[in-house]
Formats: sequence, structure tokens, C-alpha cells
Amino acid sequence: MILEVAIMKIKPDEISKFEAAFPKAEAIISSIPGYISHEMQRCIETKGRYHFLIRWENIDAHMINFRQSPKFQEFRALLGGFFAEPPVAEHFEAVTAHRI
Amino acid sequence: MILEVAIMKIKPDEISKFEAAFPKAEAIISSIPGYISHEMQRCIETKGRYHFLIRWENIDAHMINFRQSPKFQEFRALLGGFFAEPPVAEHFEAVTAHRI
Repeated sequence: MILEVAIMKIKPDEISKFEAAFPKAEAIISSIPGYISHEMQRCIETKGRYHFLIRWENIDAHMINFRQSPKFQEFRALLGGFFAEPPVAEHFEAVTAHRI
Repeated sequence: MILEVAIMKIKPDEISKFEAAFPKAEAIISSIPGYISHEMQRCIETKGRYHFLIRWENIDAHMINFRQSPKFQEFRALLGGFFAEPPVAEHFEAVTAHRI
């Protein structure tokens, strides 16, 4: 399992629309083969800053199954207009975890 | 429950020492009242970059119970020398989550 962290900065005037559109984006992401789970986390200190955490079986599930599928275009069409700047996505592997 | 994300950049020559010291740091963090769980995540693309994710009952558990306790000094004494730059910590609240 790997963790994708996508850091998103949303235009101030688009925050409520972004959050309203998010359930559709979740439905797209969670339909991808190799998807495990996700969290959309809203920064308390900085309005419009989000960390979208997605657990995938491996990097290919994200980079091939999702990014090279038509569903990625759907996802970007849904949320792309809300971004103040392009999201930055990175992949992580657990050194150690005590999750609940 | 809130999520703290601390982004850490480790000096290239100190990475193995940082990871070796980490179990002691975990023991400190997990002893704090209001601590729920944690993950130390190693960036796959950028060597020396880590996201330390800690779930707390609330912000005070982090900012008062931990940061204002002697255990914070212990934690920094243990890991502080490995940082290439000061870590950046932010707090997040879940907009939506489907976690496992």
C-alpha cells in the first residue's frame, strides 16, 4: 500500500463549490482498480488549503489505472476550475504506522 | 479528532540515523494525553522528505499537552539535529473520509 498526498489550493470564492462538488470526485476516485481509501482534509490555519490523502495498492494504481483513464479527465473537469494553482501530488511509503 | 501534518526535511547524511531514532520519538508522542495514532510516511520521489501524520483528540492535545510539556524538548533533542530545515506543522479537519 502507498499513500498519495495531493496538496490543493482552492480559489477563495470557490471553496463552497469545491466542497459541494467533492462527493462526485470521491465516487470517481473510489471506482478505480487499486483504490483502497481516502480522506479529504481541510487545513484549519489556511483557508482554501486541502490535503487529499489517497491509499492505493501501488503507484501504478494511481499513475496508470487513474491518471491514464478517462476518469482522470472527468475528475479534472469537475474540480480543475476551483484550483488557485495546479495541485502537487507525491507518493509515500510508511516507515512506521500505528493507525486506527 | 484532528490531523496534524508535520513536513520534515532530513539532511541527506542523517537519514539512516533519523529513521533509527524514530522509535524513541514514537514512544514520546504516543505517551501524550489526547494522542490517538500516527504514521511516519517517507516520500518516494524526494529522498529525505517525510510527512509525519498524527491524529489528536483536538488541537490543544498537540499545542498544549505536547508542545508545552518537557516531552517536546526530549522529542526535539532526539530529532532536531537531523532536520535540514525547521519542520512545518499544520492542523487539518476531515471534510470527508473513507479510511481503513
